[in-house]
Parts: sequence; structure tokens; C-alpha cells
Amino acid sequence: MVNTLFLPELREMLATGNDQEMAEFCTALHPARTADFMVGLTNDELWQVLAHADIATQVDVFSYIEHHRQIEILETQDREQLARLVAQLSPDDRVDLLQGVDESVLADILQRMPVEERRDFLRLSQYPEGTAGAVMTTDFAKLPETLTVRQAMEEISRQSEDYETIYYLYIVDEEDHLRGLVSARQLLTSMRNPERLISEIMETDLIAVRVTDDQEDVANSVARMDLLAIPVVDPERRVLGIITHDDVIDVMREEATEDAHRSGAVDPLDETYLQTSVFTLTWKRGIWLAVLFFFALMTAFALQRFEEPFETWAWLVPFIPLVISSGGNSGSQSATLIITALSRGHITLKDYRKVMLRELKMGLLLGGGLALMGFLACFLFVPTDQPLGPYATLVVPLTLLLVVVCGTLTGSVLPLVFEKLGWDPAMMSNPFVAGIVDILGILIYVTVAVRLLNPV
Amino acid sequence: MVNTLFLPELREMLATGNDQEMAEFCTALHPARTADFMVGLTNDELWQVLAHADIATQVDVFSYIEHHRQIEILETQDREQLARLVAQLSPDDRVDLLQGVDESVLADILQRMPVEERRDFLRLSQYPEGTAGAVMTTDFAKLPETLTVRQAMEEISRQSEDYETIYYLYIVDEEDHLRGLVSARQLLTSMRNPERLISEIMETDLIAVRVTDDQEDVANSVARMDLLAIPVVDPERRVLGIITHDDVIDVMREEATEDAHRSGAVDPLDETYLQTSVFTLTWKRGIWLAVLFFFALMTAFALQRFEEPFETWAWLVPFIPLVISSGGNSGSQSATLIITALSRGHITLKDYRKVMLRELKMGLLLGGGLALMGFLACFLFVPTDQPLGPYATLVVPLTLLLVVVCGTLTGSVLPLVFEKLGWDPAMMSNPFVAGIVDILGILIYVTVAVRLLNPV
Repeated sequence: MVNTLFLPELREMLATGNDQEMAEFCTALHPARTADFMVGLTNDELWQVLAHADIATQVDVFSYIEHHRQIEILETQDREQLARLVAQLSPDDRVDLLQGVDESVLADILQRMPVEERRDFLRLSQYPEGTAGAVMTTDFAKLPETLTVRQAMEEISRQSEDYETIYYLYIVDEEDHLRGLVSARQLLTSMRNPERLISEIMETDLIAVRVTDDQEDVANSVARMDLLAIPVVDPERRVLGIITHDDVIDVMREEATEDAHRSGAVDPLDETYLQTSVFTLTWKRGIWLAVLFFFALMTAFALQRFEEPFETWAWLVPFIPLVISSGGNSGSQSATLIITALSRGHITLKDYRKVMLRELKMGLLLGGGLALMGFLACFLFVPTDQPLGPYATLVVPLTLLLVVVCGTLTGSVLPLVFEKLGWDPAMMSNPFVAGIVDILGILIYVTVAVRLLNPV
Repeated sequence: MVNTLFLPELREMLATGNDQEMAEFCTALHPARTADFMVGLTNDELWQVLAHADIATQVDVFSYIEHHRQIEILETQDREQLARLVAQLSPDDRVDLLQGVDESVLADILQRMPVEERRDFLRLSQYPEGTAGAVMTTDFAKLPETLTVRQAMEEISRQSEDYETIYYLYIVDEEDHLRGLVSARQLLTSMRNPERLISEIMETDLIAVRVTDDQEDVANSVARMDLLAIPVVDPERRVLGIITHDDVIDVMREEATEDAHRSGAVDPLDETYLQTSVFTLTWKRGIWLAVLFFFALMTAFALQRFEEPFETWAWLVPFIPLVISSGGNSGSQSATLIITALSRGHITLKDYRKVMLRELKMGLLLGGGLALMGFLACFLFVPTDQPLGPYATLVVPLTLLLVVVCGTLTGSVLPLVFEKLGWDPAMMSNPFVAGIVDILGILIYVTVAVRLLNPV
């Protein structure tokens, strides 16, 4: 969505070189809104306007520009000015940005950056994507235990600009070991005793995450505890950084989108739908479609191998999709339930017996229900002009019952097995489960038909 | 997951009536952890232990207890004490809780609650679920424009306990119209000029949401703007409440889980997987399985109607699942992509032409790829001992191409149509799309076969 409301004015300012108006435009609105209004400009124009703002405003607005445009601007506009801007970005945003740019541009920008920010980037960029280390920021308030309430207050009002949040202050010993947390709220309510030590008012039962923890687990912790930020520590419990609520929201959104895409058999996108090229999209869909095509080919093989029963009893053919989809759908349902429950921490591997038993029960109930509906449908379909034996109308219902049970069990076992193997259970996407259950469905259908229809 | 670490000690304390130890247990840890350690207790035991804490701790720990247990406790334990506790809960949590309890219990508790909290509950509980009004809290800092920085500071350190967050202070005129926002960070950095008016330092370009807005849109705004909280206003822009970052995280999690369930053809659960009874689960799955069964029956009808081609050319039969699943899978992919892009605000209805064109291109590319693979597979399957005419090996490939294009177009059009009609596009779940595309797939398959195999 491109907001074109201010485009004519912006272009007019650029044409007449009205520096003052451009500077005013940059600061008048919320930076996110300013960024929205500039979406329609070219990269050159955008940077020309933004260059009129002070560096703090530049940083604010820039951080709301779409990721792929940030990279384009970095690669095409004034390198010296941009290096200054990048140095002021929050450390986690800086890593995200620089990891996207061309290598030669990266080298050039790093070289122009102050040594401290450069080192910080090199350290942070080592953490693998998807871990706490890759999401954390290093700009946080870290105070020694020996400060008083007044000193802590002075410290944060002085350093406020440098910290991502001043609302949580982490208290450390001389070797940076995490000792406690004082919130700005606690500081404010302790103002009546300004000489009290912060070590006396700090919370000591702190939830922290390891730098190597999965970002999804971090999000679960923050969500459970209603935290503003969570500290990230090394194995010796030294604080390396913090992850703030807005980053947690981004992580959750990212994970939810990835899960949704996986469950629809699309490889997760790096950009939005419209930003991703048709060829990338085709590739990310094509690989999964090919895998599923392979499953379907196996089903076709299975069907061909059992050509005979379907030629003898041609009335079985129309029910093939019915049998297959009932198994596939109940399998997808189970997989969806188990994958979400695992990722939310509502079940663990230890619950596998309970899960299996529940899925078995549901399989019997659901399969029984479909079998009943199938039995009724059979009166419409099964020809009565052939000597089929007494069990003909039972073939489809019995198959449905067995296929649905097979679906619920397969759909719940596979994600648990993936979890056990340390793989992402969400990889076991719905169409994947459905593909496997399809083949089993055909085998069950043929077996049941041959048993019930062939006279002994 | 039940944490049993402290269970023996807790039971010992209860048996010996060790009041002091129980009081200490309640306050020693982070309230979320205290709640975790009490999961293994019965409701009676839990409430006995918790009754030893001061009211503030009771409220903290209680708010981390699972929703269904909170309700059980409310319905079975001392009504007078609980009414006191409920009165202290944050207004949004209170509404969530009380809406779950039995009507007679609700009436009893309301009657015991202070009049102000009772009115607050009655007002908040009127907002329909899923709207901003239903998620907001009314405990927020609302200050007049006329205060100075010092006065504002004093106000929040005095009132700190009563507000859900003291980090965002909303500035209003005499009639509660939203005028601006001052963050605690701004107050702290303005401490050098304590006599300055807050109206001079406040932000005035504020993002607010309407009380009737969808909670998903609220989450999108907060995520986009990296906000700690967002104000909720009426049509005259009077502030009614705020929604804080932790509630936004809850909303996002809830929506992500609902979307996941819908895309797996499960009606969204109100509780976690293990907390939901097998019968409720069976019902929530069964209704969708029945709908999908109906689609599959239509496919069976279609197949029966075209019995003849499949009897004449029996080698077409094994490909039925291949054709159907290729269409269904590509349709699911498109539906997934469009539904996520719509819910994230990455596309709007206006983009429909662009979306259709992209899906058409992808359909042709993906369908072309599958057609090629299908063409190769046909050499393995299509019998050579029959006079089938020159086009026999083209039936399956051509069908695949058409079916996949049909899948991508159907999968993208349906969610857009739902959005246009004002329904939730996520209702158009993957299996639903697949069910519709299945029927179309059979029709395409039969048409192509008849055209290519019957001599003119």
C-alpha cells in the first residue's frame, strides 16, 4: 500500500530545493508515518529528503523503511553519511540490515564505522539466525550493585538516549554476572529513599535465556511472564544483551507466518508476498509441489498395482478421492493440533502416550461418524444389479473408519517423531502428512475391498 | 507439564499448618514461577497456600494460574476473599475471568465488589470479543495538559500501583479528548527543567485505535510502531483505555493459533489441546470433516457421472489422486499466501489485479513443471498395447497444467472474495480450497481425456 498523500508536496520541495520544509516534514510526524509517506519516492529522492533531518530523526525514520529499500539505499546513496546513520542504529537492527547488503558495500561501511560499533556488529553477526543471540540488542542499561536509587536515576536520565529501553535496568556484579533487575517503576516509587542501594530493591528471581536458545522459546517465556524485556546470558550467566518486547512481537509474527506457510506447503518467504518475485515464489512452492507430486506418483503406482479390483468392481473408483481425502484431512487436523501444541509448549514429548490415546479415540469417533455417512451414501452409489455378496455396502464405511484412524495416528506421530529427532515439527506440514496418508489409504481400501468382496 | 519440585514441601507445610513458610513461599519467587510450582496442588490446597500471602501477591500469582483453574477456584473457594482479589485484578483480566464463571457465582462476586470495579466490569464486558474494547484495560495514567514535569513525576510515583503501565502517560483535555503522550523516558530526560509544562514536551502525532477495531488490526499497529501501549478511543477521540504490549502478544498468539487451526480444518479451541475434552475436539474436527466429506461426495458424484471414460481407458484411474492432489496442493499454497498477506496487511483488496496476474503466472510455471514431470511419468504408466491415438501421453500433462492454474486462481480468488464480503478470509481454509479444486480437477480431467482420446 503506497500512501501518496504528500507525494506532490515532497516532489515540489525537492524541485525547489526547499531545505527548511524538508527538514520540517521529517520531524513533524511519528517516524513510522513519515516513512509511510515517503514510500512513493524513488530511493534517490527519499534519501535527498531524509538527508535534511538531524541524525537522530534519520535513524528513527530509516528504521521504519522496508527492509529491501533500506538495503537499496545503503547500496546506492552516500556511503559516508550512511555509515554514520548505521552506526546509530540499534545493534540488532544493524545486524539485520548489514547482513542483507552486498559484500563490498558491507566492507566499505564497516570501515567507515567507529571501531566499537564495528566490533559489536562482528560479534552479534556470529549468532546463527533463529537464536536469542541473533535477536538481542547490546544497548541496554547495565548497572553495578553498589549504586543508590538516586545514582541509578541520574545514570538513566543521562544515558537514556543510548539504551533501547530504560524501563528495565539490569544489575550486574564486577564480572557482568546477572544479579537482579530494577524497573523504572520501582525506582520511581523508591524516590522517597534516594540513598537506598538498588541491590536492596532489585528483583532477584529473574528469568533469563541462553544466547543459543531458540527464538521461539524466548518468545514463549516473554509471553508467559508479560515481560518488557528478557536478559540474554552466556553459560556463566554473564549478561550479553537483552531482547525487548517489540523484537519478541517481530519474532512471533515471523514464526507465525513461517508456520502458516509451511502448513500450506510453501517454503517460508524472506519478504512480503508482493515483494517476492514470481520466480522466487514459484521456486518456494515448486520444491514442495514436486515432493508432493512424488507422493502422488507413489499413490498412482499403488493404484496401478491393484488395477484388477478396480476393473472388476468399477463402482469402487468414484470413492477413491473420498477415501483418500478423509484420511488426508483427519491427518492434517491431527498434525495441526500437535504442531501448535508443541510450539506453544502445551505438550511435550513425555505426553506421547496421552496424545496417542486421545488421537486413537478421536480417530474412532470421527471415523465412525464418516463411516455412517458413507454407509448412507453407498445406497446412492453401489449398483444393485450385480451379485456382490452381502458385504458390498460395508466396503466404503469400513475403509473410512480405518483410514481416519490411520490418519489421526500418523498425523500425530510424525510431528512427535520430528520433535524427538530434534527437527522442527512444523516441517511435517499438513500436505506432507496428507501425502503419506493417501498412500496408506489406497492400500487399506484395496485390502478391505478384496477381503469383503471375494468369496472365501 | 506439571512442576513437582516443591510439591512435597508444600503438602508438608499444609499438613503442619506452617503459616509463615507458606507466606514466604508465595513471595520468594517470581509470581509466574510460584504459580508453576502450585500446578500439582488441588484447588483447595492451592487456595489454602495462596490465602497466606498479602493481597498484592495473591493477585500477582493468581493472574498466572491457568484460566480454567482460576474459574474452578472462583466457583469453589471463599467468595468474600475472592471478591477482594477479583477487585484488584487488572480490568481486562477481570473481564476475561468473570465471563467464564457460572452466572450465580458471577452475581455473587459482583455484589461483593466495590461499586467502581463493578461498573467498570459491566462497561468493559459489553465490548464484543475480538475488538479493541474487549482487550483494553482502564487502569492507565491519564493526566491533564496543565501539569508540569515535576507534577507529572509526582503523580506517577504516587499512583504507580494503580496503573498497568507508568511508562506511557496519556495527556487529555478537560473532556478526556486525547491530546498527546509523554513517555517516562521523556519525563526523566526533562527533569532538568522540572517546571516545564508537559504539554510542551508531549508527542502529538499519536496512533490510536477505535474501541470497535478488530484486535488483529490493533496488533498490526503496535507491531509496526514498536509501541509499549496503544490508546483506545471513542469516535470523538476520547480515551477509553489502553492496550499494553503483553496483551498484544497474547492477541497475536491467540490469532496465530486460531489461524493455524483453521488452516488445518479444526475449529479454533478455547483451551489448550490437553485441556480440551476428546468430545469437544471431536466436535470441532467433525463439523469440518463432515463439510469436506460432502465436497468429496460431490467429487464421487462427478466421477460416477463420467464412469464411461474411466471404464474405457482404465489406465486413467491411477492418475485420479495425482490430478486431484496437484490442484488441491497448489490451491492450498495460494490460499495460504493470500490469507497471510491479507492478515499482515501486506496486500489489500485493491491489489487484486496484481495478485491474480502473479497467481496466473505461477500457475503456468508450476503447472508447466508438473506437466513435464507428468509427461515423463506417463511413459511408465500409459499402456502401449492399445490403439490410443497420438495424444494419449498428453492427457495427464495437459490436465496437470490446467488443474494447477485452476488451483492457484481459485486459491487466491476465494480469500479475496471473503475479504470483500467482510468475512474472515482465514475461514477459507486450505482443505476447503482443496475440496473445491478437487471437483474442478475431475471435470478438467474428464474433459481433456474425452477431447484428446476420442477421434473426432
